[in-house]
Amino acid sequence: MSKKLLIVSTSKIHGSVYMGYLKEEVADFFGGVEELLFIPYARPGGISFDAYTELPQKAFASLGIKVKGLHEFADPAQALAHAQGIFTGGGNTFLLLKTLYELNLIEPLQQTIAKGTPYMGSSAGSNITGLSIGTSNDMPIVYPPSFKALGVVPFNINPHYLDPNPSSKHQGETRETRINEFHVHNSQPVVGLREGSWLRLENEALELKGELDARLFRAGHPPKELPPGDWSFLLQE
Amino acid sequence: MSKKLLIVSTSKIHGSVYMGYLKEEVADFFGGVEELLFIPYARPGGISFDAYTELPQKAFASLGIKVKGLHEFADPAQALAHAQGIFTGGGNTFLLLKTLYELNLIEPLQQTIAKGTPYMGSSAGSNITGLSIGTSNDMPIVYPPSFKALGVVPFNINPHYLDPNPSSKHQGETRETRINEFHVHNSQPVVGLREGSWLRLENEALELKGELDARLFRAGHPPKELPPGDWSFLLQE
Repeated sequence: MSKKLLIVSTSKIHGSVYMGYLKEEVADFFGGVEELLFIPYARPGGISFDAYTELPQKAFASLGIKVKGLHEFADPAQALAHAQGIFTGGGNTFLLLKTLYELNLIEPLQQTIAKGTPYMGSSAGSNITGLSIGTSNDMPIVYPPSFKALGVVPFNINPHYLDPNPSSKHQGETRETRINEFHVHNSQPVVGLREGSWLRLENEALELKGELDARLFRAGHPPKELPPGDWSFLLQE
Repeated sequence: MSKKLLIVSTSKIHGSVYMGYLKEEVADFFGGVEELLFIPYARPGGISFDAYTELPQKAFASLGIKVKGLHEFADPAQALAHAQGIFTGGGNTFLLLKTLYELNLIEPLQQTIAKGTPYMGSSAGSNITGLSIGTSNDMPIVYPPSFKALGVVPFNINPHYLDPNPSSKHQGETRETRINEFHVHNSQPVVGLREGSWLRLENEALELKGELDARLFRAGHPPKELPPGDWSFLLQE
């Protein structure tokens, strides 16, 4: 079976509840799934795994989908292998990737995705689908043994993509400047996914969904704004 | 001799030229120095070492101080040992630290600072004075062999500190949330240095300078706003 991925910029857009704006897409993506495995390792704000798992539990209850936290299993690799569907929530990407390495879950997760188990990631959970976490926006609060990520897509994600604010007086680098710096040292394309956008990979086709354009950065080329629709060309590069 | 450090949030504030707002402080800090060694490894925007070194060359010329780039020396460790003063510019903290490790310059830099050679850092150059780069704002565009930094002060720096923007619709974490997440996993205090602020360490005393308060984060405590003036208590913690 081919990979089935939902790569989401953010679990929440301004003024919406957790996962609210995504409900229809998620119901369709996880059609037939009765129980979802939630990976809570990114722990936003240092929240406990149990408390974090309650968020998707509530959000998926209305779709008739049960949610279990991966931390509840004595053998998480086995749990991944037997999962009907997987959802990795946002938080800190460094912490998420470090925990996956420490628990030896990188390969099991890659294998589960390779065999067609639907995987949804949001924010940090989307970052790790790329070739590396080198385009994360997060603070490096812990040191992972590598920045290499799952690599289940042949590019990198920059979630919560932000356009430069022309009225800002702040001297920190813009997101675009940062991604251009990334491309001085790395060659993979980077998709700047705005809040409210997501990518869906299914049957070897990649689609940008939501209402917004996304910004595509390629090493050595000026960035491009591309509309929702077929983005399968990115799988060939 | 005791350490002499100038830890600056940003080399440029809105509407000023490079180093413009800092001129008096820098002239006083580097009093007696005729030639400064510039560490250009953070390479903002992927600029070349030569091009980057021209910026401080121009800025320091009006103070009668010559600037040489560390990249111009065949033996950079020797150059550090013999420097009259050192300035590390901003850019990408991961790239800066990785390059210092690769060139085996961490220890030489620590030794040079320990013997009293005045060291000034701005932004990324300030981040590396702390215990780790775990509170950098930068994108992790390259993988350094460790997040451990020079540790010439017993705390961490968060340069370009930004207060939460209550009108923002963006769902990315605020700076304060990020630093609180850092403290779930790390114990050292973090100084949130706003643009226009700097710390000066000299004669075993630490002073916050500039017009603004800085925000002090300690693990397990609510953050505190503290005014410019004596911050030597942070050396004792």
